[in-house]
Formats: sequence, C-alpha cells, structure tokens
Amino acid sequence: MLRRYWGEIKDPVHGYVYVTEAEKKIIDCFPVQRLRRLRQLAGAEFVYPGANHTRFEHSIGVMHLAGVLTQNSNLAQFLTKDEAQKIRIAALLHDVGHGPFSHVFEHLLVKFLNKIHEDMTVWIIQESELKDVISNIGYDPNVVGKLAVGDLHEPGKAFMDQTVHSAVDVDKLDFIVRDTHHTGAEYGYIDIFRLIHMMDVLGENLAVDLGALSALESFILARIESFKSIYFHRVARAAQIMLATAMEKAKNELGLVDFKTPEEYLALDDYTVWTMLKKCDKSKEIIDNLERRRILKCAYDKTFYVRDKAISSIFSVEEVRTQIRNQIASEAGVKTESVFIDVPTLPSVPYRHSILLEPMEIPVFRRTRNGERIPQRLSDISGIFDVLKGFINILRVYTEQKHRKKVGLAAEKLLGSTPSSIKISY
Amino acid sequence: MLRRYWGEIKDPVHGYVYVTEAEKKIIDCFPVQRLRRLRQLAGAEFVYPGANHTRFEHSIGVMHLAGVLTQNSNLAQFLTKDEAQKIRIAALLHDVGHGPFSHVFEHLLVKFLNKIHEDMTVWIIQESELKDVISNIGYDPNVVGKLAVGDLHEPGKAFMDQTVHSAVDVDKLDFIVRDTHHTGAEYGYIDIFRLIHMMDVLGENLAVDLGALSALESFILARIESFKSIYFHRVARAAQIMLATAMEKAKNELGLVDFKTPEEYLALDDYTVWTMLKKCDKSKEIIDNLERRRILKCAYDKTFYVRDKAISSIFSVEEVRTQIRNQIASEAGVKTESVFIDVPTLPSVPYRHSILLEPMEIPVFRRTRNGERIPQRLSDISGIFDVLKGFINILRVYTEQKHRKKVGLAAEKLLGSTPSSIKISY
Amino acid sequence: MLRRYWGEIKDPVHGYVYVTEAEKKIIDCFPVQRLRRLRQLAGAEFVYPGANHTRFEHSIGVMHLAGVLTQNSNLAQFLTKDEAQKIRIAALLHDVGHGPFSHVFEHLLVKFLNKIHEDMTVWIIQESELKDVISNIGYDPNVVGKLAVGDLHEPGKAFMDQTVHSAVDVDKLDFIVRDTHHTGAEYGYIDIFRLIHMMDVLGENLAVDLGALSALESFILARIESFKSIYFHRVARAAQIMLATAMEKAKNELGLVDFKTPEEYLALDDYTVWTMLKKCDKSKEIIDNLERRRILKCAYDKTFYVRDKAISSIFSVEEVRTQIRNQIASEAGVKTESVFIDVPTLPSVPYRHSILLEPMEIPVFRRTRNGERIPQRLSDISGIFDVLKGFINILRVYTEQKHRKKVGLAAEKLLGSTPSSIKISY
Amino acid sequence: MLRRYWGEIKDPVHGYVYVTEAEKKIIDCFPVQRLRRLRQLAGAEFVYPGANHTRFEHSIGVMHLAGVLTQNSNLAQFLTKDEAQKIRIAALLHDVGHGPFSHVFEHLLVKFLNKIHEDMTVWIIQESELKDVISNIGYDPNVVGKLAVGDLHEPGKAFMDQTVHSAVDVDKLDFIVRDTHHTGAEYGYIDIFRLIHMMDVLGENLAVDLGALSALESFILARIESFKSIYFHRVARAAQIMLATAMEKAKNELGLVDFKTPEEYLALDDYTVWTMLKKCDKSKEIIDNLERRRILKCAYDKTFYVRDKAISSIFSVEEVRTQIRNQIASEAGVKTESVFIDVPTLPSVPYRHSILLEPMEIPVFRRTRNGERIPQRLSDISGIFDVLKGFINILRVYTEQKHRKKVGLAAEKLLGSTPSSIKISY
Repeated sequence: MLRRYWGEIKDPVHGYVYVTEAEKKIIDCFPVQRLRRLRQLAGAEFVYPGANHTRFEHSIGVMHLAGVLTQNSNLAQFLTKDEAQKIRIAALLHDVGHGPFSHVFEHLLVKFLNKIHEDMTVWIIQESELKDVISNIGYDPNVVGKLAVGDLHEPGKAFMDQTVHSAVDVDKLDFIVRDTHHTGAEYGYIDIFRLIHMMDVLGENLAVDLGALSALESFILARIESFKSIYFHRVARAAQIMLATAMEKAKNELGLVDFKTPEEYLALDDYTVWTMLKKCDKSKEIIDNLERRRILKCAYDKTFYVRDKAISSIFSVEEVRTQIRNQIASEAGVKTESVFIDVPTLPSVPYRHSILLEPMEIPVFRRTRNGERIPQRLSDISGIFDVLKGFINILRVYTEQKHRKKVGLAAEKLLGSTPSSIKISY
Repeated sequence: MLRRYWGEIKDPVHGYVYVTEAEKKIIDCFPVQRLRRLRQLAGAEFVYPGANHTRFEHSIGVMHLAGVLTQNSNLAQFLTKDEAQKIRIAALLHDVGHGPFSHVFEHLLVKFLNKIHEDMTVWIIQESELKDVISNIGYDPNVVGKLAVGDLHEPGKAFMDQTVHSAVDVDKLDFIVRDTHHTGAEYGYIDIFRLIHMMDVLGENLAVDLGALSALESFILARIESFKSIYFHRVARAAQIMLATAMEKAKNELGLVDFKTPEEYLALDDYTVWTMLKKCDKSKEIIDNLERRRILKCAYDKTFYVRDKAISSIFSVEEVRTQIRNQIASEAGVKTESVFIDVPTLPSVPYRHSILLEPMEIPVFRRTRNGERIPQRLSDISGIFDVLKGFINILRVYTEQKHRKKVGLAAEKLLGSTPSSIKISY
Repeated sequence: MLRRYWGEIKDPVHGYVYVTEAEKKIIDCFPVQRLRRLRQLAGAEFVYPGANHTRFEHSIGVMHLAGVLTQNSNLAQFLTKDEAQKIRIAALLHDVGHGPFSHVFEHLLVKFLNKIHEDMTVWIIQESELKDVISNIGYDPNVVGKLAVGDLHEPGKAFMDQTVHSAVDVDKLDFIVRDTHHTGAEYGYIDIFRLIHMMDVLGENLAVDLGALSALESFILARIESFKSIYFHRVARAAQIMLATAMEKAKNELGLVDFKTPEEYLALDDYTVWTMLKKCDKSKEIIDNLERRRILKCAYDKTFYVRDKAISSIFSVEEVRTQIRNQIASEAGVKTESVFIDVPTLPSVPYRHSILLEPMEIPVFRRTRNGERIPQRLSDISGIFDVLKGFINILRVYTEQKHRKKVGLAAEKLLGSTPSSIKISY
Repeated sequence: MLRRYWGEIKDPVHGYVYVTEAEKKIIDCFPVQRLRRLRQLAGAEFVYPGANHTRFEHSIGVMHLAGVLTQNSNLAQFLTKDEAQKIRIAALLHDVGHGPFSHVFEHLLVKFLNKIHEDMTVWIIQESELKDVISNIGYDPNVVGKLAVGDLHEPGKAFMDQTVHSAVDVDKLDFIVRDTHHTGAEYGYIDIFRLIHMMDVLGENLAVDLGALSALESFILARIESFKSIYFHRVARAAQIMLATAMEKAKNELGLVDFKTPEEYLALDDYTVWTMLKKCDKSKEIIDNLERRRILKCAYDKTFYVRDKAISSIFSVEEVRTQIRNQIASEAGVKTESVFIDVPTLPSVPYRHSILLEPMEIPVFRRTRNGERIPQRLSDISGIFDVLKGFINILRVYTEQKHRKKVGLAAEKLLGSTPSSIKISY
C-alpha cells in the first residue's frame, strides 16, 4: 500500500519525479528536510554564482534515477517490488549523514572523530527518527542504512549496493548533470539515460554494455573536467580551506564535534554553523573575509599529469606537508598560518570519489550477435579511459593577497617553477 | 579606465557576463556579496526543491541585461558610455535593499517602519560603504541610488529609469527566465532577447516595437502563470506566511526593526535570521514546523477572474480582514491565531509588481513602412493583454492541518463555496 | 510477442523513444519511411532556417507521447495492452496521408478531389502495403485506419479517438515543442508532461484536470503565438502560396491529382515534386523565384481580434474573394494573377486545427477533496481561454515586390487602412 | 554603408544572428540559397530522425561565430572593420562548393575530377553570380574565395585564414553544437563561447589560452565521440556507401560529373539528384532500398586504438582494399559487388577533418602573471589530448542482410576476429 503513488515533485533537471506514499513519509522527516540547508557545492558559489543547489534537491534526483535504473529491464528481472522500493529509499537517504557545507565539515569528522560522512549516514538512519518511520512502512532500518552506503552485501545481489555506490552510480549521474545545470559550467551534459539504459547485471555485478561506450567516455571526461573546473577550482578550494580553517579554530568553543546523539549532529547545518562562526572570536575574521570575498590567493599551482604516484604519495604524509609549509613560510618571511598547502586528492577537505583514485573498476562487457555478454577490460577498449586513470594530482599553495608574491617565489624555490594564471574561471 | 574589461562571470542563465573593473569593485562590496545569503524566492523551495537561487545571481543577471539593452542600437545613440555604465551599476544594485527572505521581511518594513525595500536600496547606496566605492570610481552615489530604484528623473531621459523599473524592465526579464531555470516550472522560457532588441525610445520613454508582439504577449502570460504557479503558489505562500508570522512575533526580542545604520540592517540575512528565529522562544515553534515541513494548509481558496475591483478592495482594508478572520475562527471554534487570511495582491507579504496592478502602461508602437513610429494602446492591439489587465485576485484562508475541515466549512459559509485541490504542484 | 521491446530511437525532443517489434515493422514500411521526405513546416524555412524537420520525426514523437499518455494511470486502467499498442500504432500512422509539402498539397486535394489528408491516411493504411503488415502483426487495418484519424468510435471509449484527435492531443503536444526546438521560435516550451499526467477519462472522454490549468493556458497561448509567428507568418505563408500556385498551374502536365493507387500517391514527395515543378514550363518560374528567395510581398495585412464572425465569413465564400481580388488588381492597374488574397483560416492552404475554430470543446474538471471530479466550462474558469476563442482572423494581400505599393494602396482603399511592418521575423 | 545592420535571423542554436545589408545580399544569392537543399549530415538521418538540418543553417551559424570571434578583443585590434566583414562573408560562403549530400558527392569529385569541395567553393565564389555581388558590395571575389577556404595567406595575418580553417575553427565550433541540437546525440554541448573568448593571436596565428583548457579538452572529446556516434556511425556510413555507389553507377547516364559551369554544378542538389537516381535504371534499386530502409549490414567492424599507423596505411592503398574485397567475396561465396570495405579515415567518402589526422597542431599558450604569453605543446599539457592524437582507425565490411553471416565469417578469417554489436544507436 505504501508503494502507492502519492504525487510528484518538479525537478529542474529531471522534470517530474513521481513519489510513493512511503517515500513522502521519509522525505518529510527532519533529517531529509535538513538537507535543504546543506549546499551541494560549498565554495563553488564564489566562482559560479548560480551554484546554490542543495543536498535535498540532489537526493530527490538520486532517488529518481535509482528508480529509472531498477526499472531498466535488465535489472528489473532480479528485483522484487519491495527491493526496488528499498533501493529508491536508500538512494534518497544516501547523503543524510553530511555535515554543514558537506565535505568541508567532513574534514573535521575525519581529523577529530575518524569518521566519514557515510558513517554518519548509517548512524542517522539507524538511530534518528528515521528509524521508526522506516520500520513503520515495513522495512528494516539496518538494511536500509547499509544499502544507503553500499554496504549491504545482499548475497548474489552485489548490484544493489552498486546502484548507489560504484564508479558509474546514480549518485554521480545525478550530480554531474545537476552541477552543470546550476553552475552553467557546461561540462556535464552527458547522456545519462543511455548509460542507465545500457546497464546490466553481470554475475551479480552492475556492468555497462559497450554499446554505451561513447556515453561512458563522455561521462568520464565530464567528471575530470568537473573536477578541474568546479570541485577543485582554485577559488572554490580557497573558500573551502578558509571555511575548514574557521571550523577547526572554533571547534572547541562551539563544540562542533562534541555531538552525542543524531539530533545534536543534525542541529548543525549551513545556516546555524555560518552564524555561529560569524560570532565566535576564533573564526569571525575568516567569515568576515568570506562575506567580503577576500579569498586566499593561489601563490603556486602545479598539476601533475604523470602517473608517477610517488610524487603525490609524498604529500599524503601530513608531516611532510607540515614541513614544506614551514619551509615556505620561513623562506617567504611570513607566519606559518599564512601558508596553506592544498593537495586536493588528500582528505584535507576530502572528496572521496573512487573513480578518480581507482577508476579501473568500471565493469563493462560486449554483447555478441547471439546475445552472449563478454566481460572486457575498459582500458583495453578505451584509450581515453586508459589515460584518465589516476589522472589528477594537484599541488597548490595559498596565502593572503599581500603575501602572494613572496610566498609564490618561496614555493617555486622549493617545489620548482610552474605556470599559473589569474583568470577567474580557471 | 574603470570601464575597462576586468573578467567574466559564468551565469547558468545568460552564459558569460563580462564585467568591468568598476563593476568588479562594487560586486566585491559587502552589501552586494550579502545578496548571496538572500534567497530569490523564499517559500517556493517547499514546492520546487531547486528554487535555491539568490538575489546575488539575479543582480548579476540584471546588470548583464541592462548592458544588452543599452547596447541596443535604438538606445545606444542616446547614452554616453558613462551613462551606460551607470545604468549597469544601478541594475546591479537595484536589490541591495532587500531584507532576509526578501519580500517576507518587507512585510515588517511596511508594517512597522512604513518603508519598502526600494527605500532601503537608496539608503544603502547612499550611506553604506557603497557610497565611497561609487564615489571613488567617479560616480555620484545619489544619482546611482535614485537610478537603482527608477527615481532619477534625468530630464529628457525617462527611459534610463525605466530600464530597471517599468512594466517590461530588465529586472523582470531576468527573473522570469531565471526562476524558470532553477524551479523547472517551465512557464518562463520566453524570448527576452527579442523583447530587448525591439525596445526603442519614444519621446523619452522606453517602448516596445509591435514587431515583438508575440514575445510581449508570451512575457505577459509567463508572468501571470509564474504568479499562479510559483510566487502565489498555495504552499509557497503558506511558508511565507509562517515565516512572516515568526518574524513578527520575535520582532521585539530580536530587535528586527531596530536597526539604525545600514550596517545593522545589512547584518540581517537569511542565515542569521533563520538561526535567531530558531532560538527565540516566540518563534521557535514555527521554525521547527518549517524544518519538518509541517506547513499551514489552505482551507479555502478563491480566485476571482472578474474585473470588479470592489471585491478585492474590501480586503485591502485591514479592519475588514481582521473582522472576517475573527468570524471564521469563531464559527469554526478555533483560536483567531489559527486562522490566516491571505490576499496576495495586498502588502501583507507584498509583491509590488506594477504590471499586475496597473498593466495598462506598457508603451508600444508600430513602425510604418517609411520608418515612422506610431504609439498604440496595447489593449487595442492585443486581446490577450486586454483580458490580463488586473487579472488575479486571490483570497485564501489557511490554518493548521487539524483545523482544516472546520475552518474550510466556516470560510465557505462566510465567503461562499469554492473549488479546491490538494495537489502539491498547484 | 510483437509488443516485445525491439530497440530505441534517439529523438532530439523527447530523448529515447522505445520501440516494440511490431512498431519497428511498421516504421520500416515505405509509407512511413516516405515521411522522411515531407517537411513538417513547408514554407517556414524561409523565416526559420532551422525548420527542416519532417513528418517522420514528428510521427515517432507522436507515437511516443501516445505511449506516455496511455501509461498514465488514469487511462491505463481502461485499456488492454493490445489497445494501448494499437493507439501507439495509430499515432505513428496519423500523418501517412500527407502529400508533398503537407498542407500545401492538401490545397489540391481539397480543391480538385474534395479530400483532406485524413482521408488519404485511412486509404493508405487500408490499401497500401501497410494493410498486410498490420494484419500480420495481428491487428485490423480498418480499425487502425479509423483510429489514426480519430474516427473509430469504440463504444464507451471515445477517449481512444481523442488521444490523437482532440483539442489537446498528442499530435499537437508533440509539434508545439518540436517546432519550437527546430525553429528556435521559443513560443512552445510548455510543460507537456504536466498536461499528459493530468489527463483523465471523464465519462468516456479525455479531460484535463484543472490542477494543470497553468500548463493548459500556456499551451493555448503557445498555439496562438505559434500560429502568428510560425504557421501564419507572413513570409512563410507567401512561400506556401507560391508553391500552391505552382502546383495548381502544373497540375495537369504533371498529373499531380491523377493518382489511382496508394502507390501512385505515395510516389509524390517533396523531393520529386520540387524537381518536377522545376522542370515544368508552367511552374518553373515560381520555383526559380523560390530558389532565389524572391518571395511575394505582403502589401496589406489585417488581423481581426474581434469576435464578429461576420467579417471572416464573408471571405469564406470563394466568389467574394475572387471579386475582391479583381477589384484590387483593377484599381492597382496590375494583372489579376499578380494579386493573392490570403485568409489563413480558410482552406486555401488549410490548417485544420480545430482548437482555433472551435476551441470551446476542451473538457476540463476539478477534483474535490473527496476525489470527485466535477466537469467545468473552461471559459468560466479561465479568462485567458475565454479571450482566445475564435481568435485569429487574418486577411492579407500579396503581390510581387514591384507592385507592392500600388497593390497596397488599392487594398487599403477597398479594405480600409491597416498597420504594417516589414520586419523579417514578424 | 553596406556593413549597416539589415535585420536578424532566428537560429535554433545561437538565437538571433544579426545580419548586415552586404550579407543579406549574399545570402539571397542562388549559390547560398541552394544550401537549403543540401543536408548537413547525409546518412545520419537513418540513425537520428531529427538530423535534417542543412548547410544553409550551418553557414549562417558559422558566419555568426566568425563575427563573435573577430569581435573578441584580442583579435579585434588586428582587424579593420572591412576585414572583419570579409571574414564573416568568407565564413558564410565556406561551404558553397558542396555537392548533393555533401561528402557523398565529394567522393565523385575526388575520384573522377581530382577535386575536393573547397576547390568548388573557390570556383563558385569567383565564377558564379556571387562574383558580381561581391564586387558590387566592394570586395574582391578572389580574396573572398581564398579566405573562404583558408588559403588567403594575408601577410602577417595567418589568423584570418585560421578563423574558418584550423583545428579549432568556427566551422567546427558551429557544427559540433548544431549536430548535437538536431540529432539529440548529446555529445556536443560544449562551451564554445569560452573557447572563442579565450582565443588570441600569437605571432600571426590563432592560439587558445590554456585558461580554456577544460573547454578545449571537452571539444576534442566531443569531436571524437561525434565521429563515433554520428559521422562514422555504422548505419549512417552504410547509407552513405549506398548513396555513393548509386551515384557512381549512374554517373555516366546522369552526367553527374560532366558540369562545365558553376551553374551546371549548382543545379545539382539533394532533391534533384535523389529524384534522378530514383529514375535511372543503374541506381534505382539502391534508392528503392534506401526508401524502404533496407540498409547494408555491417558484417565486420574493427576499431584500432593503437597509434601504429602501419595498419591504417595499408588500407589507404586502393589496390590493397580491392584485393581484400575480392578475397572476402570469394571466401564467402558471394559476388564482389556485395562486399564493401569501409575505412572511414580514407576518402572513399571523405571527411577531411584535419584534427583527426593531424591534431598536433592546436596552438596553445599560457599567460603569466605579468601578461606574457608562453606557447606550449598541448600534448605536454593535456594527457587527454595526447591520447586522442591519431585516434580512430575503423575498418568495416558491409554486405546485404542475407550475406551477413557468410561475409562476416570470411572477413574474420582474413582480418582476425572482432567484437560486434547490432544496437541501432551505436
């Protein structure tokens, strides 16, 4: 009965999203409604003024695409109606664990609590008011929680986890087009329905029919370009670093990581935390700078296109980074606090998009004339894919406007010279 | 020198917006940057999850369109480069006077200070840090302030005021397409560049060449449909009423209308006010309801398509409304505070869009074969326009979910029966 | 078995259109493939260079929308799977009876054979190779033929006919957005999925839930604006008149209306007829003019917005029109053949869109809180609709460039003076 | 005077294209108007029903983008107004030399006349009625002709040629988005205005600022994906091969390559040639098959992603291809005429897009903080670009449906086994 149609929601990206009564009950819970006050792309609005969309809108979209994927005739045959409904609900809830300004707060979660947002997602589904609502509509909150983070491991049905969590999942398919729609960045208009339509179950795993190879390659490039132009944009990262620094400084005064219950955690959102940081002596100057768009300047920027992982792995050791920071500051004659080392593949402000780090796992297959499906290595098939594996290693040094030149020279002395540009949209 | 190109901003609606150095200086001021934390369509996000765009994005867009309009060859001949730059700056600043949640706060401005947001716009341009920045780039803050609200009255150049403030101005042209883009509501894809291209100066006034009649009629209908589907949407209005009520209740505790300086006023934004209202005893319950999407229900809804202004004028007298409210509450057996009378054309939460109330003033002309321009009455030309004059009179009664039936019956008894529907997107 | 999924077709408007094996067999027949060589909007390409789309593309789109409508839960309950498949096939075939340049050839059909294209549609479905293919996949060609033109009259299921033939049918819903997409005219971006989703069966008739009133009003206005800006565009009509005149002149030499079998009729398409007309002495000059864009000029143009049908009915009598034509020619001192009277609501080049002539029949209803559906008169509900009934009466006089002035003055003398403009896109 | 604004044309891709009086005169010439009857993507309509756009629409678009590029402040400083107008006219005329079905007819031009369409473009501009029109508006037809094919070599201004003819020229920028718009293939929504805005003159050559690197990479990938999904689509190529074969067979009867004057050549267009081929005994069967969508089937399909040019160079020798064709036919036991070898990089039906064959020449530069522009090798900068150089080598064998299996096996025996698929859109 609860899988009965309730009504529709108008989405600027996908059009009408049809919603069941069960879904409506969950959407109206506080943990989901709270996502209205979590930006999808914190920091990017300083580059793209239109980038104000939220995790709420995205979550509705991911639920919708999960529905489209599970109705694909290849998958539908392996799923009961209840399983399909469960997957849509898990998709709807996959981001409920995010903190204020999403990945910025995750920096604190990782550093001080050794958690990532997926841990919080499971916790909230299993312990907040969501628990009762999910039970009341006839599902097991433990199951939904695990499924929401791709950790259910239903025997013989690994593809259920992969729907929301894999290299080509409905989460990524939604945000690539949604981020494009609201930023105007134009790198993400890809044929997501082709990809969804050509997905199949191989063994128990989700795999992409090579008939959608062009769409798949476009998707991969769109992701890379989005990283360069949106997620890792020099100015967007600067804003994230400032916000992360503000949070870390004010952490104790504001008790940002002292929450004991889901409710205490959920009380934190963009509105409240921004307001708190603005009042707190430790962080107010940073917020004041952000509110006046006095953003850290990039004094040094180097992108490695080589595959040599040695270079980036050096920077994954925090001690090494700290030492470099000190050296640059000393060389430049500025305080250490004025120098920020940013290595976006690292979890300082972590984007844990596995495709970037481990993109080799996109399972693909070709279909022969007689209908057989032959698994393939995507690297063997696609020269584009091959070159994009492990693609981006960015190393940047930020500082205040006034120190830009000094710090730039010091960094070049230590790290080697590098091209740079001051254009706003690059 | 300051009119020199500085760089570009990527806008999801108009593409690249090219910005001068003068404009960049103004954009980076606090009063403009603050617009990032003022939603364009407060309340509408409860209907359209994608409606999270801000006054900042809109202001950049209005500046852009002002530039396109002033470069139109008809207008360009009457404007110096400095005047054209001034109009762009005025367009950029036309909304700096808005308060938190835009028109919702304007309810307080009107009721307690007898001001509208345009008054605040002038005040801020002339008294805040904007004053010095504008002076430094060589313009007169008094002139820019008046121009921003369409009140400059430059002799012989009335069209300068009308660029940003008239029935078909760049403000409306921007938001009609922008609101459509982010809501997905699809009523606003109109040919704004046709309209802009076909504008001309007649005498000293902006007028539309009837060669753009189709685009003009589409624009008028798009505005009407947007009012019905977005701005006056039943659920969006309910959320606005709740927020306005919360502000009014907490007004004294929070000192919401006690500001003395532009800086004190500008300290209020969506983030801070929402956080304050959530903490204040007087308003916390309402905010709590909004955060759980427990929104007032419409118990009675009547739209008048008649032109008889008598009906709506009755409701413009607050005493009459109060009396009706008391009667309905008494008849239904609920507290007066549980009943809300909403007459959206009135300034309870005011949308002061003159086209709706006084749409007869769109100046149009036809061009004869020999180039003469003959002014026309749009009503004589366009049957569509004629019917749309003074179009919407909406009368609604809201209450809590639990009282919906009682209040509905009481309202029907008093005000006559009426159709209704419970669909989310209508 | 034949309702089994075969594959998909990529449509620029609707995305992927999924096709059954039965449909694939019909699509590959000659009468359907021939639609690739029939322009959707003959003449409009002289105004909108992008308007090169064909009846083939449109027919695929109409089939797709018929599928979406029949899957709408309101309708689905009244339809067997076979009926739903039949409706899609009928939708696919609704235009197979069109002749070269669509409505232009229909002028000859009407004048010399007293037929309209729907008559040809039935004939072709019942007598060409389509007959056998339809029989072989298990349907009755007589039934499909009647359904394709809205003439089946299945007892108790009038809505089946209305799906493809009524005021708000899938034919119009497809072309309004498709014509917009390819022309760029921007008047037709309306929310067709809202309309389709809100359709229901009332009694046995298709009706629109008033919850979609905004979408319905936008649709009505989009149709009107499309008529003015595309279908009845001054230049597009001029090209159609020239082509119709060329066909009429060359009719006997080329045997254009002498076909005896469906195959002979189907041998006529845009490519062959254009090539034939170019070679025929009677018509070559006109085609030569069209190929050099020497198009008839509008010397007189009057649009009546009054409802007085007397005026337009005068022009529906051919003798009256001929007399006026003679008088204008005589007054202007030019040959009668140099004067063309165009009254687009008349079947000289007929657009038989019933909404324009008889728009009062759009059945709508409101849904009460307890689910009852109350039929309404749309005119009572919608002031916009009310004014648009019987809207356009256009009267134009065309002539060659060199006679424009003389003929214009003569027409004004006879028909009264009138505004005019020479802009290309109006 | 002739550079004076005349009016505007509505383009579905770029919106309003503003046209000067000089341009209007040229647009209305027969050689340009004829482009309305030349499809942009002959053959692709069998895969994408919406792909009916023409060279006319494209030419208007290229002229428009040439105008945008020459107005870019980097280029504008090096160009007089007359030069800028000349470039727009050259852009408008760059495709006037195309024959029926564009690249299909070019096959005959190459094989029998040793010409390519650019040769015809120069000939037509310098010898047809265009010659006089261009002279009359004050330009030299010899100059315009050379500029239209990128062969002017104006001393110190190589970038003038490169505007319309280089790896990232306005021709390609237009068709990548236009083909996407009308096919719906979705691989070409790229940020062309970013690219155009970031172009500059380096020395005398057009070069791309690396600030647009993301847009550039997206452009390169979009081109590759468009080749795979549209231009070299298996079914589109099959249709082109059929049409090319029909033309070659009927060549002598129809005198297809016997034209002596520009007028004789220009008399050939899609409409006339299709009609002629349908009547000619030598070709009628093929056209009949095309009209019934009985298209050659791909029996063997191999795409080489290796850089080894040896493999593809083998196939560039016609004798080698003929021998392989014979061997396959013999092995399969079918007639030689039933076997078609297709190597799309070769000029059998030639697409001469230099970027594919020689993509190394995209000049790029980085801009330092002090404004210096440092030339760079794109391959050093962009791993994506590096892998895409010399990317596609496709080898296909086509035959009739009935021989598909036999020919497939024979081809595999000779050429090695290969994956394949029968999906319509790949």
